[in-house]
Amino acid sequence: MKAIKVGLLGIGTVGSGTFHVLRRNQAEIKGRAGRGIEVTMVCRRDLAQARQIVGDADVVVTADPFEIIRNPEIDIVVETIGGCDLARSLVLEAIAQGKHVVTANKALLAVHGTEIFAAARAKGVMVAFEAAVAGGIPIIKALREGLTANRIEWIAGIINGTTNFILSEMRSKGLDFATVLKEAQRLGYAEADPTFDVEGVDAAHKLTLMSAIAFGVPVQFDKAHVEGISQLQAADIKYAEQLGYRIKLLGLTRRRDTGIELRVHPTLVPMSRLIANVEGAMNAVVVQGDAVGTTLYYGKGAGAEPTASAVIADLVDITRLHTADPDHRVPHLAFQPDAMSDTAILPMAEVLTSYYLRLRVADEAGVLSRITTILAEHDISIDAVLQRESNEGERQTDLIILTHETQEGRMNRALAQMQGLNTVLAPIVRLRKEELA
Amino acid sequence: MKAIKVGLLGIGTVGSGTFHVLRRNQAEIKGRAGRGIEVTMVCRRDLAQARQIVGDADVVVTADPFEIIRNPEIDIVVETIGGCDLARSLVLEAIAQGKHVVTANKALLAVHGTEIFAAARAKGVMVAFEAAVAGGIPIIKALREGLTANRIEWIAGIINGTTNFILSEMRSKGLDFATVLKEAQRLGYAEADPTFDVEGVDAAHKLTLMSAIAFGVPVQFDKAHVEGISQLQAADIKYAEQLGYRIKLLGLTRRRDTGIELRVHPTLVPMSRLIANVEGAMNAVVVQGDAVGTTLYYGKGAGAEPTASAVIADLVDITRLHTADPDHRVPHLAFQPDAMSDTAILPMAEVLTSYYLRLRVADEAGVLSRITTILAEHDISIDAVLQRESNEGERQTDLIILTHETQEGRMNRALAQMQGLNTVLAPIVRLRKEELA
Repeated sequence: MKAIKVGLLGIGTVGSGTFHVLRRNQAEIKGRAGRGIEVTMVCRRDLAQARQIVGDADVVVTADPFEIIRNPEIDIVVETIGGCDLARSLVLEAIAQGKHVVTANKALLAVHGTEIFAAARAKGVMVAFEAAVAGGIPIIKALREGLTANRIEWIAGIINGTTNFILSEMRSKGLDFATVLKEAQRLGYAEADPTFDVEGVDAAHKLTLMSAIAFGVPVQFDKAHVEGISQLQAADIKYAEQLGYRIKLLGLTRRRDTGIELRVHPTLVPMSRLIANVEGAMNAVVVQGDAVGTTLYYGKGAGAEPTASAVIADLVDITRLHTADPDHRVPHLAFQPDAMSDTAILPMAEVLTSYYLRLRVADEAGVLSRITTILAEHDISIDAVLQRESNEGERQTDLIILTHETQEGRMNRALAQMQGLNTVLAPIVRLRKEELA
Repeated sequence: MKAIKVGLLGIGTVGSGTFHVLRRNQAEIKGRAGRGIEVTMVCRRDLAQARQIVGDADVVVTADPFEIIRNPEIDIVVETIGGCDLARSLVLEAIAQGKHVVTANKALLAVHGTEIFAAARAKGVMVAFEAAVAGGIPIIKALREGLTANRIEWIAGIINGTTNFILSEMRSKGLDFATVLKEAQRLGYAEADPTFDVEGVDAAHKLTLMSAIAFGVPVQFDKAHVEGISQLQAADIKYAEQLGYRIKLLGLTRRRDTGIELRVHPTLVPMSRLIANVEGAMNAVVVQGDAVGTTLYYGKGAGAEPTASAVIADLVDITRLHTADPDHRVPHLAFQPDAMSDTAILPMAEVLTSYYLRLRVADEAGVLSRITTILAEHDISIDAVLQRESNEGERQTDLIILTHETQEGRMNRALAQMQGLNTVLAPIVRLRKEELA
């Protein structure tokens, strides 16, 4: 059978990884797919760089992406340009030209997914995006196909390697955020402008996609609560450790009777959980299904070849399914369009979680009593209290409180009241805690 | 669209789990599959028990499995009877009748897979077996599809929950094998006759399937090296811990230049590896691919609903693909029949691994020197030595040696020589060690 012809829009890290792995493993891939998969066109503004990457391979190099998209010889377009505006135009035009699309672009799909998937469906083509979430881990496939028997209850993921690397370093070396960020930038784990990663935006894009697939709702990135790690202090990592917890930047989505939680924030996780032991730039996703129970998927969330592994898995899937009746393909967001749900994403004030609070308080009688009274008045029950003994001569101390599950809005009101006490001497640190059991 | 009709051959643990999950989650499953999936016939020798399980559902109950297999209304047959002889006849007859088959029967496929897959291929039907390996973890899908871009280098799995439960208990409570086995039997984690689990046979069945898929070779259970945990002593778990290792019953398969390693045995694994921290009856599989690097898949390896989760994922896959050209389906063992490899399974003597040795030796001068000389003569290099200080008055002591990687045959020869020393006072304990990095 004739080889499937692929055009790469962008041949940077992921594009060149895809190009090289496809060539290196062509025998294995053809042996599995039953058909060759060949890159015949690549696009990059700097033609010389593109030529250097493709070497002596028989590949057309162009600076104009539309030349690829409009070439009738091309079966599948791989979009690795990133960003939203140009990528959106290219993907929509590729779909209009009847091309299948593979993309690693989570921002694009988390924001414009509804439009793009509808266009693809209307045209009868596939838009595949395994590489958009957690790099080489086949988590989209697990959620859409492997766990299809389950009512998914929740997903919790370490889905940003940069922040997990920073948190691992902060904990193991006792360093503060700014110091470790600089090290991460030096090592290439963090960008020069790290905002997207450290403020949780990248994780929220990925979480938005997983949530839509798990619960059959449209992608709604604008409804996600997004909180990063730039404000996290070394002291809280240490106190958490003393209480048996690690702090991870988790993407969490959970089905409640009232709606769907969709949130990214630093989270205390019991040390005994496997996911609490995922260190460095690695990713891991825990999925809780009603039949299967807890499952976990772990691997590299970024990098040229891990991401290429996911891109190529999509290429093989499309190679197999492109002649099938579109109704028999796996739906983009797991559920058939007529089976999608309009369950609302819950506002953060209605989210249920437990909390870690650190209060800098005056070291005098009655302080703890006033604070616990406020919590009790708001019906928030306490799980554990850790009071650091104050050093000789010090007149203030740290008071750590772990609470049981409560509603975020309720906690906000209690926090406002506690913050007003004149024995509370600094802004209260509030982190969320999940048992993940 | 008309619902797909399923017949269950056997409605015990897995069969009834499948029945209940399909009904409980029918809306979600139909919403994903685009088509209902209904159990319309079940078979069990004891009809009254079968009727009790199906309750008031509109299901035909029969004691004769062939009544299901030969019913033209049935699209897919789920085989959960277990064992080899009857199951083989039933599956082959179902294929002959043009039925697709879903099975959780690893023994059947590890032994008769070649015959069964060939029959299915000739008839143009699918035999799906996600549930045969690691229960609810979608590891077959990950290997066959998710990691399809990769040249798989090795797989290491905790793929038997009974033995992992026993090892976890032995370690955490410091108990010996026999005591924990009794506890496991009382709790229902081990069968009355636990041989299949504790001697590694069940793990070897599953490993055989994963190895075939990873490397494109036929299933060759008879070539697997199989060693269980019944001889494992509490002392070695403790010494391993002191050296930074946990002992797990691993199924290991690895591609070497000379052939494929296929082996199940107790294995020392560095404590810092995620898989070393998989406790209780849980399963986990680590897959090393050349592009993706290390990935890990974790979840429940047994039980009614976790296994049903995998069975139903297969049912949905078949529902999607049964109208597709058979050439476009995922091949049973990942590779197209004409792309299968005849790479040989290596005899155990040619396997490369590192070792943990415990020698009971006379506490006198020159003992260590004689032993290390023997190792050096066989070109086996030492990684670490731990010599327990002997108690006052004792004339013998434990000597623990960790070696670097060497060939098993070479180690066997060195062991025979060491065992012949008159200062070695008991049979030498030899365990294998894998860094999994």
